[in-house]
Amino acid sequence: MNDQAWMERALTAAQRGGLATWQNPQVGAVLVKDDHLLAIGYHHRYGDYHAERDALSQVTPDQARGGTLYVTLEPCNHSGKQPPCSHLVVDYGIKRVVVGQLDPHQIVAGKGVQYLRDHGIQVTIGVLEQEARAINPHYNFFFTHQRPWIALKQAVTLDGKVALGNGKRTAITNQAVYDWVHQERAHYQAILAGSQTVLTDNPTLGTTAKLEHQPWRVILDRRGRLFEQAHLKIWQTTVYPTLVYTETPISLTLPGVEIKQLAEVTPKTVVDDLAQQGLQSLYVEGGPQIHNAFYQADLWDESITYLSPKLIGGRGVTAFSGPEPGRLMELVNVEVQKLGSDLRIRGERKCLPD
Amino acid sequence: MNDQAWMERALTAAQRGGLATWQNPQVGAVLVKDDHLLAIGYHHRYGDYHAERDALSQVTPDQARGGTLYVTLEPCNHSGKQPPCSHLVVDYGIKRVVVGQLDPHQIVAGKGVQYLRDHGIQVTIGVLEQEARAINPHYNFFFTHQRPWIALKQAVTLDGKVALGNGKRTAITNQAVYDWVHQERAHYQAILAGSQTVLTDNPTLGTTAKLEHQPWRVILDRRGRLFEQAHLKIWQTTVYPTLVYTETPISLTLPGVEIKQLAEVTPKTVVDDLAQQGLQSLYVEGGPQIHNAFYQADLWDESITYLSPKLIGGRGVTAFSGPEPGRLMELVNVEVQKLGSDLRIRGERKCLPD
Repeated sequence: MNDQAWMERALTAAQRGGLATWQNPQVGAVLVKDDHLLAIGYHHRYGDYHAERDALSQVTPDQARGGTLYVTLEPCNHSGKQPPCSHLVVDYGIKRVVVGQLDPHQIVAGKGVQYLRDHGIQVTIGVLEQEARAINPHYNFFFTHQRPWIALKQAVTLDGKVALGNGKRTAITNQAVYDWVHQERAHYQAILAGSQTVLTDNPTLGTTAKLEHQPWRVILDRRGRLFEQAHLKIWQTTVYPTLVYTETPISLTLPGVEIKQLAEVTPKTVVDDLAQQGLQSLYVEGGPQIHNAFYQADLWDESITYLSPKLIGGRGVTAFSGPEPGRLMELVNVEVQKLGSDLRIRGERKCLPD
Repeated sequence: MNDQAWMERALTAAQRGGLATWQNPQVGAVLVKDDHLLAIGYHHRYGDYHAERDALSQVTPDQARGGTLYVTLEPCNHSGKQPPCSHLVVDYGIKRVVVGQLDPHQIVAGKGVQYLRDHGIQVTIGVLEQEARAINPHYNFFFTHQRPWIALKQAVTLDGKVALGNGKRTAITNQAVYDWVHQERAHYQAILAGSQTVLTDNPTLGTTAKLEHQPWRVILDRRGRLFEQAHLKIWQTTVYPTLVYTETPISLTLPGVEIKQLAEVTPKTVVDDLAQQGLQSLYVEGGPQIHNAFYQADLWDESITYLSPKLIGGRGVTAFSGPEPGRLMELVNVEVQKLGSDLRIRGERKCLPD
């Protein structure tokens, strides 16, 4: 088998980590010697062995010596929750390392490969690089652009309305969409909503996925309106870490809730703060003014629209609205999917940030 | 072969008439004797022989005598552009007539069948009735409800915007949609637009279909703003009969243009007037205020949305908008179709008029 074929096996292994790797990337490693498979490893879950260690732990250094290690992501060179993989690879006497993609994380970023080369290991970089990148889109985006990948998610009618605007929740989409969204949220590290949406829809902003690390809930509540509303579901479910951004001083202590006062609560200030906390992806549920604010600030990468074949008309609340002039932007990599009677239309911003 | 099988052949024949039958229904007729096919006829084009005459003209009365005539629509009993078919059927000595659907047209409406029965012909009604109705949806609707079938057609972004709102035309959808719409218009007898849409988009409101009878253009121009704009394409293409509804007295004579002053130009007054003129179907191109006015007046039967994976946000012009409270209405019989990168989503009003 050639490098590509072994790397494919490493990529398949990597994806077994799934959502359990949380803020860590999904990584797979395959140990080969004399064209024979010795071990397959992967990063099982956040905090566990890295993929290289998972593979090498299945053999003795004697068995591994002279072998080739295929790893989807550059081995780390720092001591984090685990000792550096690069050292382990050297200790095991590996002769050659084949890497899918370099790690964009500043703490690694070529240093892992450099350490290997400095210790006489032959390193090949970029085998199935695109595929390797694709399994960790948010991780790669975050460490390349120093901010979370941002999805703007909405549910609309054919005439672009998100609600009747009578102060009550309007059920636009069907049960299939509801179920889907509760799974989809699990793929993002934070779920954001504005206070108006929380007041009108009273969502949990949670997931139905079984996760050790649930996505954070991020609420924008400039005036601190929500703290007087004890009935809200966001206060009643404490399984999700909750972060409320406000411009008003709030002297309250609520279990699982962090209140952050900013001089100005804007997409920029919030995203900057979330980035500092290492959150790699953000799912913005709106409402329409918040969507528009992120859109106008060019702080979005993905648009997810759930479209139901309904109409509202009149003063119905319109999607993406605000006082600025409109800007026509086209999506790319568009996917359309049927969910019962409704549609899911997903696409990416045509010009992502450099 | 049984009745259904012969009626199927008549239905297939009927559809050969296509758009050429214009305000007449598509009708097919099959003449059978001793379970042998003698002739197949159909209504070729508006003004031509009816289907029964087209079939019977292929045989002599001697050949036809004692035969069975399958006809998708009740034979007429009045002298219009053609002498009554019911008389011809009797003259040819037909023994039995099998009818797909009764003609909802008040001038026929059971009288054709009555004449046949009064002359000793055995009549069977309702063989493949649903299929027979389905080939003439607008004709059937018009003569059942005494008003045209109304389609609301729009082109929107994912956030329900129809334009940037800068006074210029915004190209929302792609060339495939443009081409499709120019064919689709040919399936309606009138194409309606408001003066703002005409000013902003400067459309022809025409078709690229080769038709003897082009759809009418119906323009709502309450203040008579368009008559000073000689550059508009609607004035420059005279192949389409054009009807302008206004509330202002206009003393102009333009070739191919009829100007109608009404006390109030509303969906109701316009639709009433179009109904009086026998127009069986109306394709409302908007803009959004006109769509909303028809929507609020419950004067619509079909919604056709061309959706492009784009966003506009801000002050972009929103679809279906007006001062009334919104009303959530669900579409039925929804069809989704891809046109290049765009989607066509068509559905019907859940509760059509009784």
